[in-house]
Amino acid sequence: MLHKLQVRLPAEATDRSYDILIGTGLLDQAGLEIATRFGPRKIVVISDSHVAPLYLERLHAALKTAGHTLLQPAIMPAGEPHKTLPTLQQLAETVLQQQPDRRLLVLALGGGVVGDMAGMLAALLLRGVDYIQIPTTLLAQVDSSVGGKTGLDTPQGKNLLGAFHQPRLVLADLDLLRSLPARHWRSGFAEIVKYGLINQADFFTWCHAHGPKLLAGDAELLTSAIARSCASKAAIVAADEKESGQRALLNLGHTFGHALEAASGFGENLYHGEAVAIGCALALRFSIALGLCPASELDRYLALCAACELPTTPQLPASMVPTLLDFMSGDKKNSDGAITLILLRGIGQAFVQKGVSRQQLATFWHEVLANPSTRNAC
Amino acid sequence: MLHKLQVRLPAEATDRSYDILIGTGLLDQAGLEIATRFGPRKIVVISDSHVAPLYLERLHAALKTAGHTLLQPAIMPAGEPHKTLPTLQQLAETVLQQQPDRRLLVLALGGGVVGDMAGMLAALLLRGVDYIQIPTTLLAQVDSSVGGKTGLDTPQGKNLLGAFHQPRLVLADLDLLRSLPARHWRSGFAEIVKYGLINQADFFTWCHAHGPKLLAGDAELLTSAIARSCASKAAIVAADEKESGQRALLNLGHTFGHALEAASGFGENLYHGEAVAIGCALALRFSIALGLCPASELDRYLALCAACELPTTPQLPASMVPTLLDFMSGDKKNSDGAITLILLRGIGQAFVQKGVSRQQLATFWHEVLANPSTRNAC
Repeated sequence: MLHKLQVRLPAEATDRSYDILIGTGLLDQAGLEIATRFGPRKIVVISDSHVAPLYLERLHAALKTAGHTLLQPAIMPAGEPHKTLPTLQQLAETVLQQQPDRRLLVLALGGGVVGDMAGMLAALLLRGVDYIQIPTTLLAQVDSSVGGKTGLDTPQGKNLLGAFHQPRLVLADLDLLRSLPARHWRSGFAEIVKYGLINQADFFTWCHAHGPKLLAGDAELLTSAIARSCASKAAIVAADEKESGQRALLNLGHTFGHALEAASGFGENLYHGEAVAIGCALALRFSIALGLCPASELDRYLALCAACELPTTPQLPASMVPTLLDFMSGDKKNSDGAITLILLRGIGQAFVQKGVSRQQLATFWHEVLANPSTRNAC
Repeated sequence: MLHKLQVRLPAEATDRSYDILIGTGLLDQAGLEIATRFGPRKIVVISDSHVAPLYLERLHAALKTAGHTLLQPAIMPAGEPHKTLPTLQQLAETVLQQQPDRRLLVLALGGGVVGDMAGMLAALLLRGVDYIQIPTTLLAQVDSSVGGKTGLDTPQGKNLLGAFHQPRLVLADLDLLRSLPARHWRSGFAEIVKYGLINQADFFTWCHAHGPKLLAGDAELLTSAIARSCASKAAIVAADEKESGQRALLNLGHTFGHALEAASGFGENLYHGEAVAIGCALALRFSIALGLCPASELDRYLALCAACELPTTPQLPASMVPTLLDFMSGDKKNSDGAITLILLRGIGQAFVQKGVSRQQLATFWHEVLANPSTRNAC
């Protein structure tokens, strides 16, 4: 006695395309930009204890003036250690106590952590509501605010829980970057350089030529770099939203980098962009060790990093190798035991390398940690 | 200075159709049914403290024999009070400690709570992995295991956090229902009757004619009823997966019912199916009060419920009315303040009624709680 039914689900036809606006004065225009696209809405702002005191009042005023209705904001403690399910629960309860409906619009005001948490909250609230990103760090403007990856950390690693949920709009306001310390600018710049490394050798050269002036605050160079980065990411995401192939290239430097961040406790010791800068150096070194990439490409990368004051060497004792390997083994891109890495045939020539063994990586890490700054250690 | 980019995302083309198998012996065939469709996989079973001791060993044996690799199972405490984010965290950590990759297959073995939690876990683990439902209650076999709604509760209400994530396969094994107490059978039967009420008057008549014999354990009647219910739900879900319209009809009896469950503390006092049975009675009463439905339709429904020992009257003091209204106001289907209900023009003629005012409902609830079993109270 067996009945068989099939549930047939048509492809989802919803238009999920969205605009990214990059410029000055966008915080004060946010209400209008939203109203023009989506009409007057009920909006809840998600922010953190660092950013809310700086910009929340201005944003609320801009939203009110444009005719939106404001819920009480949900403010989380600042920092990666709070990118967890218990924080999500607190944010969710703050919003749910105000009895929202599915027309609610979640607005993320903050850096990457706020963006990831607000996006995940929007993905789950009432099984999904719209959200908009107003990234307030360079890192978030060129990376996490675009592409619809949301997520949070568990004790087992970074972003191990999450959802693909695309924003409806991204507003990258350059004015918001002015208050950031230099270290944050450099951390964001590391992700910008990554796009050059992946598939745009000319942009890598541009970054080397203009990096120091950009980091000194040149608005025109900054706008160009953000626009180029977002366009680069948008093209890759459009081709492979759910990371079944090409999107994994965006993780260049991230598997090494995440392991370093995790081993360092995700705190002030090592910013995400710094970990990515070191991770890209390690991806180059490992590619060279495998005979896949000329050693001169590492020299070019190290020269850019020296000019822009980006770190390239991990500062950990050799005793940490097993821990680092465990973090790398837990990466989402892996399948069936072997480790997947993004490696380089040269600058602008990243590719997905599956099947890297734990043993290969163990040897590599031991050599790296014994000779952190010797570029030909492997 | 304003740059504008557009991220263009093509419609998602993934085939998300899936089979529902209904029959006997499916638990022991699970490994084969999975291997035939998806090849040998790494599988983690999610279950609860009631169900795991009964069926986990047999399921594991069946999976192993068919060549699958088993992770340590993640077992949650049984019951709706545990359908929360902290439980999700525990389940996620149990799975993540075993370093899964995206080829992991999550297998839900349990009732609706386990299915909802396992589905949500699968939606979020590594930003989404496949999952399969093996529902072990009649309620779950005819309702929650089909359709891809996952979710959990917060102090503000039921299923207020969740995701749409379709299972890859549903195995409804009738043998698993044998151990259920009669009250569970009746609770499941209430959801079966709901499909008749929504849009299949002939099936409602069938339920009235065969309900008592079905509830006494007749396997043939049971199979027919489950198959008809799943087909009915599948058709509605296929037409409107994300509940922008018609899918809301499946919530017939649920907005009233959820409020009753919430007010009763989601426990042994009132099962979900019992709340739905009462909720359907209230939907009929409210429809009659609004002059939308002949009073004789309520008589037909009450007669069926009497024959099948389904409850139809709420047991709460009038002082609970504000609490009930708050729970109804927080329902996901609402928009912009007014309440949306599923009402009936008659048996088999459900429709979505937007814009019901809190005041109308307050009056209705006061009359109902003052005269719980008087069918013409309104």
